[in-house]
Amino acid sequence: MKKSIKISIAQINSSLGDFEYNYEKIINNINAASLAGAELIVFPEAALFGYHPFDLLECPGLVELQLKYLKKIEKNIPFGLTAVVGLFTKNKSKLGRPYFNSVAIVTRKKKTRLFHKEILPVGDVFDEGRFIEKGNLKNNFIKVSGHKIFISICEDIWGWPDQLGRSIHSANPLTQVAKNGVDLVLNISASPFYADKMKLRQRVVQKTANYFKAPMIYTNLVGAQDEIIYDGNSFLTDAKGEVSFQLNSFKEQLAHFELTNKKLICLSKNWDRENQTKKNNKQIELLNCLVLGIQDFCRKNGFTKIHLGISGGIDSALVACLAGRALGVENVIGIALPSEFNDPISLILAKKLCENLKIKFIEFPIQKIYQASKNEIDKNFNIDQFSLVHENLQARLRGLVLMAYANHSSSLLLSTSNKSEYAVGYSTLYGDMCGGLAPIGDLTKKQVVDLCLEINRQGIVIPEKIITRPPSAELRPNQKDQDSLPEYNKLDAAVVNLVEKMLKPRNETERWTFSKLSKTEFKRWQAPPILKVSAHAFGRGRRFPISYSLK
Amino acid sequence: MKKSIKISIAQINSSLGDFEYNYEKIINNINAASLAGAELIVFPEAALFGYHPFDLLECPGLVELQLKYLKKIEKNIPFGLTAVVGLFTKNKSKLGRPYFNSVAIVTRKKKTRLFHKEILPVGDVFDEGRFIEKGNLKNNFIKVSGHKIFISICEDIWGWPDQLGRSIHSANPLTQVAKNGVDLVLNISASPFYADKMKLRQRVVQKTANYFKAPMIYTNLVGAQDEIIYDGNSFLTDAKGEVSFQLNSFKEQLAHFELTNKKLICLSKNWDRENQTKKNNKQIELLNCLVLGIQDFCRKNGFTKIHLGISGGIDSALVACLAGRALGVENVIGIALPSEFNDPISLILAKKLCENLKIKFIEFPIQKIYQASKNEIDKNFNIDQFSLVHENLQARLRGLVLMAYANHSSSLLLSTSNKSEYAVGYSTLYGDMCGGLAPIGDLTKKQVVDLCLEINRQGIVIPEKIITRPPSAELRPNQKDQDSLPEYNKLDAAVVNLVEKMLKPRNETERWTFSKLSKTEFKRWQAPPILKVSAHAFGRGRRFPISYSLK
Repeated sequence: MKKSIKISIAQINSSLGDFEYNYEKIINNINAASLAGAELIVFPEAALFGYHPFDLLECPGLVELQLKYLKKIEKNIPFGLTAVVGLFTKNKSKLGRPYFNSVAIVTRKKKTRLFHKEILPVGDVFDEGRFIEKGNLKNNFIKVSGHKIFISICEDIWGWPDQLGRSIHSANPLTQVAKNGVDLVLNISASPFYADKMKLRQRVVQKTANYFKAPMIYTNLVGAQDEIIYDGNSFLTDAKGEVSFQLNSFKEQLAHFELTNKKLICLSKNWDRENQTKKNNKQIELLNCLVLGIQDFCRKNGFTKIHLGISGGIDSALVACLAGRALGVENVIGIALPSEFNDPISLILAKKLCENLKIKFIEFPIQKIYQASKNEIDKNFNIDQFSLVHENLQARLRGLVLMAYANHSSSLLLSTSNKSEYAVGYSTLYGDMCGGLAPIGDLTKKQVVDLCLEINRQGIVIPEKIITRPPSAELRPNQKDQDSLPEYNKLDAAVVNLVEKMLKPRNETERWTFSKLSKTEFKRWQAPPILKVSAHAFGRGRRFPISYSLK
Repeated sequence: MKKSIKISIAQINSSLGDFEYNYEKIINNINAASLAGAELIVFPEAALFGYHPFDLLECPGLVELQLKYLKKIEKNIPFGLTAVVGLFTKNKSKLGRPYFNSVAIVTRKKKTRLFHKEILPVGDVFDEGRFIEKGNLKNNFIKVSGHKIFISICEDIWGWPDQLGRSIHSANPLTQVAKNGVDLVLNISASPFYADKMKLRQRVVQKTANYFKAPMIYTNLVGAQDEIIYDGNSFLTDAKGEVSFQLNSFKEQLAHFELTNKKLICLSKNWDRENQTKKNNKQIELLNCLVLGIQDFCRKNGFTKIHLGISGGIDSALVACLAGRALGVENVIGIALPSEFNDPISLILAKKLCENLKIKFIEFPIQKIYQASKNEIDKNFNIDQFSLVHENLQARLRGLVLMAYANHSSSLLLSTSNKSEYAVGYSTLYGDMCGGLAPIGDLTKKQVVDLCLEINRQGIVIPEKIITRPPSAELRPNQKDQDSLPEYNKLDAAVVNLVEKMLKPRNETERWTFSKLSKTEFKRWQAPPILKVSAHAFGRGRRFPISYSLK
């Protein structure tokens, strides 16, 4: 029987391109693991570089600079510990893309070994084929105190065909790997969150564990990078692929385990059972996810303040709550921008919401500037009837005021459009679409309502009427969303079917939505980054042309 | 000796997703070629579907719908003619991406053969790995009247290493193809224009021709699709890869040739020598390119009118000229939007330009709405000093007015920012960045000047002072671009080095520009589509993250 080994999992939140910061985080975790007696510590994919780099890799010298920090890890890692660290490395061949997505096996005074990712994802938000060359995972084996360990990187284990024998990958490189005598399989990932993503991960991990007849450790990055939110949720399975332990969601964590005779045991006495339970509540998970998305966008871009337009409607109410949780209510400002078309109750509700939330509230009636600009526009362009021009004008004047505030106080403006609105273009370009980030741009209206109800379950902050009143843009007298849109439950279903599930339109609402989708691509081309929380979001993961005609 | 065959090249402008339109174009060219006695007609890549589809391929049923039009071609092609037509086809295997980028070999009453593209481009604007599976080009041979013809699709011939033995492709599939006894090599392409692109194409075509010791026909798509402009410029070479004939640039063309004993001869008596000469003038080529870009964006999106803000500066002057050439001067409107900070000469020049160009001119002073919104903003946000807030406010009020005009008259607003401005964020988000298309967003300031000079060489329309006066945003008293930017010649060079050539910053201006580049990604994320005319443009071909830190 082989000697047991202690293994640490470092689920960290790396910052893209900030090698000094990432190095410090990595070496601190290495030292902590060493103190805890670990012989092996596993970091997520691209832990040293940060992820997803997109075209940042086209900046020359960056990967080389990052490799200097690998040298620092090699120099400073304590004796007796092997670190498995994700990073980018150079492709020294004259052929192929310039870099590899790699994992470095670092042990004091030993030559560092590098393995390269073989399956490079290019779907949805991923773009790995552009600067990264394909590796070959066949010989990705290391030995730690006699334990034979196979190492894979993220998509490498996603080549298993589904129940119908289908796969977007034409080959599964794992089937070429010698499977006998393996004691442990590692997968280091940077896998974005969306609802039910865990099930998909568990499936491919299970397939892989079964293939090797070995327990697995799946280490995932945590933190947000623009639109993408990595949820952590690293987990361990037995040799049958059954999950035995799961780390925090949306939080960093260093956890210690022991591998004995192909069995993984948890060494943390106070294993966070409470957190494990909370995970089962999808609404709370989604809230935490969006909060982290906003928080990391602010932190990684140097914003300490947030502001947004508060309309008295449900979308801005949710965004205000999320912002308060992300940066603290003292750093959030709600600005109400009523015009003549707003029901007076809207302003009362907006104010009440900010009071409840304890965020600063500014009332900025746009009536005067609306009247002034309407007069000038009507006069100069010979317009004599109220029309879309004037509806959009109000939305754009609000954008103008909110951007003035952004310029004045270096605060981040959050946009409050949701996915159902984006899908059909029910959002004004340069108006309510203004903002540095669109935190709920991947939520259907139903999801917005559900999250508001969840927030109130934790203690009422959103006035009930905000949740129950009929949605309205309030840009013309007595306007209601339902005057120009299908019922939200039907629209939401259409958006899920057409955008997330990519199905053909099958009923009246879906045909209408499909037509609107194709006519409004020009708006979404200019949308702010949208936090992705579904299988397929608007934003960089969905690249539609503008000029096309489907008949 | 083999019987000579007549070959037609149909350089067409397909519309993405408009299969009826593309089919009509294809069948009309087929009939004309047949009448001219051709035995072979060659269309560009994806001629039936349109190109580049991006994620349009994720709409289910589209490729299937397109295949119905392939059936129509099969049914209606005259006897005695073989058509080589680019299209997308289904991958019937359970493994791999759902489609192929294919070429169909269509002959009356014969089973249509399909060959699939092997090298799938994923750099810059290309995204072929997402929905397209890799083919194998080894057996892409057809016989026409005894002539053995090898067929390749676009990137398939781009696997040749460069002078230093380097290639971004890890393998060159052509080297696996039997090279003996080949009479002709075809390449059907959808290759975007940029300066000196012809040289690159000629190089890979020459390599390929030399490999097969056979003449080549390189057929390229023509027309614009959002940001991408295909220039046509299809050409033929002898067996040594020397160009013997070249088709029109930026125009459709059907041309007829004869293949006799591995030699291609032109059958058109009045071969357009004049056009051949014009091609040598790079400025004219670039103008034609941009005009086509605007024209096709309008045509393919149903716009018949264009408007833009005319400042009296050089950028808007150039865009106005391009717009007039694209849609006719009677369909273009220039709107001057002076504030208190504009030099009175600006308005005079703006007016003079529109008179010269014979486009409609509207003067819309923004002073009143600027004053009204400034007062309200200063009061509500406690601002007591003139600052960036008020500079941006003017730019955004102009955007507001121009968008009101867009809504009022269903006219396309063109944005007038250039590449040097975009690079350093010297353009106001939701202000002068407003627009459905940014036609000169890939031109450096120098290129803008050069094109204006070229336009005036053809007959003075741009008042000379517009070209010679120092550039200014005119957003505060006596402001000049050079107060906040490096000299344009230095800035332009930095932009070319950092963005197009992707070099490391090597001097003070380049370091400053690099830092500005990374701090202003958030603006470009929300930019309109930018017509690509360089090797590397802003827009969808350059995908930088926002949240990153380089120290």
